[in-house]
Amino acid sequence: MPRFFMAGTNIRGGMAIIRGRDAEHVRVLRLRPGEDLIICDAQGTDYKCRLVSADPEQVEAEVIEVVPCPAEPSVAVTVLCGLPKGDRTDYIIQKCVEAGASEIQFFLSDRCVAKPETPEKKLDRWQRIAEEAAKQSGRGIIPQVGWIGDYAGALDCAVKKDLALFMYETGEREPFNAVLEAHKDIRSCAILTGPEGGFAEFEAKLAKIAGLHLCSMGERILRCETAPVVAVSAVMYATGNLS
Amino acid sequence: MPRFFMAGTNIRGGMAIIRGRDAEHVRVLRLRPGEDLIICDAQGTDYKCRLVSADPEQVEAEVIEVVPCPAEPSVAVTVLCGLPKGDRTDYIIQKCVEAGASEIQFFLSDRCVAKPETPEKKLDRWQRIAEEAAKQSGRGIIPQVGWIGDYAGALDCAVKKDLALFMYETGEREPFNAVLEAHKDIRSCAILTGPEGGFAEFEAKLAKIAGLHLCSMGERILRCETAPVVAVSAVMYATGNLS
Repeated sequence: MPRFFMAGTNIRGGMAIIRGRDAEHVRVLRLRPGEDLIICDAQGTDYKCRLVSADPEQVEAEVIEVVPCPAEPSVAVTVLCGLPKGDRTDYIIQKCVEAGASEIQFFLSDRCVAKPETPEKKLDRWQRIAEEAAKQSGRGIIPQVGWIGDYAGALDCAVKKDLALFMYETGEREPFNAVLEAHKDIRSCAILTGPEGGFAEFEAKLAKIAGLHLCSMGERILRCETAPVVAVSAVMYATGNLS
Repeated sequence: MPRFFMAGTNIRGGMAIIRGRDAEHVRVLRLRPGEDLIICDAQGTDYKCRLVSADPEQVEAEVIEVVPCPAEPSVAVTVLCGLPKGDRTDYIIQKCVEAGASEIQFFLSDRCVAKPETPEKKLDRWQRIAEEAAKQSGRGIIPQVGWIGDYAGALDCAVKKDLALFMYETGEREPFNAVLEAHKDIRSCAILTGPEGGFAEFEAKLAKIAGLHLCSMGERILRCETAPVVAVSAVMYATGNLS
């Protein structure tokens, strides 16, 4: 069944009214009255609809069934990344959205090499990457991409989640799988990963004091753009959202 | 402790002899006689050594301890991918090596858009990407990258492993986690993923007949270059190799 991802679709009184570029899209697919389609409202809900009329300007469809989007995981994962260099941000956004993350936030930490004065300027582009990835992978929401500023802000965001993970390459850490096995029923989870040079020791100490779980992902050193994707995949797997 | 990844290092009689560029590298790091280093033979073994002499031409080190490289997972994962377009191959190689794959093979399947007449020509470049990723992530081996030709060859390779997984987006499939939970002690695993357009139905049927497990990774549609990385991460997690 064709699926349309339409933020701001006008759905009321059991009818969905589609205008503009989305209506054009329905027309291009040559859908005819009587045929079924799914309209996702980009807020986690799928509307199973039957086409009533399809003019170039406006498409009308009757809502048959309203269901939670099945592609949305049961756990909302917030990925918090120390700002990497260049287009690694884009890669992190695209792949984490595909893997199932609900939110991606960047911040400056001690070893960040990239120190743009106004990363806020990049927010529009980052958000577009998230939107494209969400559409392509059939997500039910458009994950938010944001700039959280400094490390303290990242910690503050992390501790508000049911489970907060600090991915760290050295020192005393908990096994990733032991932590996840003990938190299978979480509804929200934060994953902190560092920039190219990793986290400084004092940052790890702060994270531990703040109540984050310092976790190891094994002896292989993951690039700063790879670690978030591997971690999100593991969280999805462990919480039953990769089957 | 500094770590050197040296295929072909001459180790005999309890001494490691390093020449050429690797010797230069030791010199650049200003290691002095008496200092310790790890030499990995790129075949899964780490030699903990103590430096005896470091001339620009030749470095000699005494072998103190021989241990299996701790970064090598307990399961050898072979990633088999329908050939994607452009540089997606490079991405798959780099990320799968980081995530812990032991071998990456490409093949042509029904819906491959990319149909280079001589993908063999790319093998050198692919292998260099694997080598760089192996060094960077601290692997104990250089995963092999290969061109397996056709789909039948891919199936033949897959069925020789302890567990063979066919990642499929539609139809009747087994839950990925149920399959992995039932095969925690495997030593080898094959993961088959499709090209941009996915696998054709007859390819899925063939895979099933051949004994592969048709698996779902959830409702999110993963790009052809993302699916192998997510799948390898999940296998590593499930087999205790991500902690």
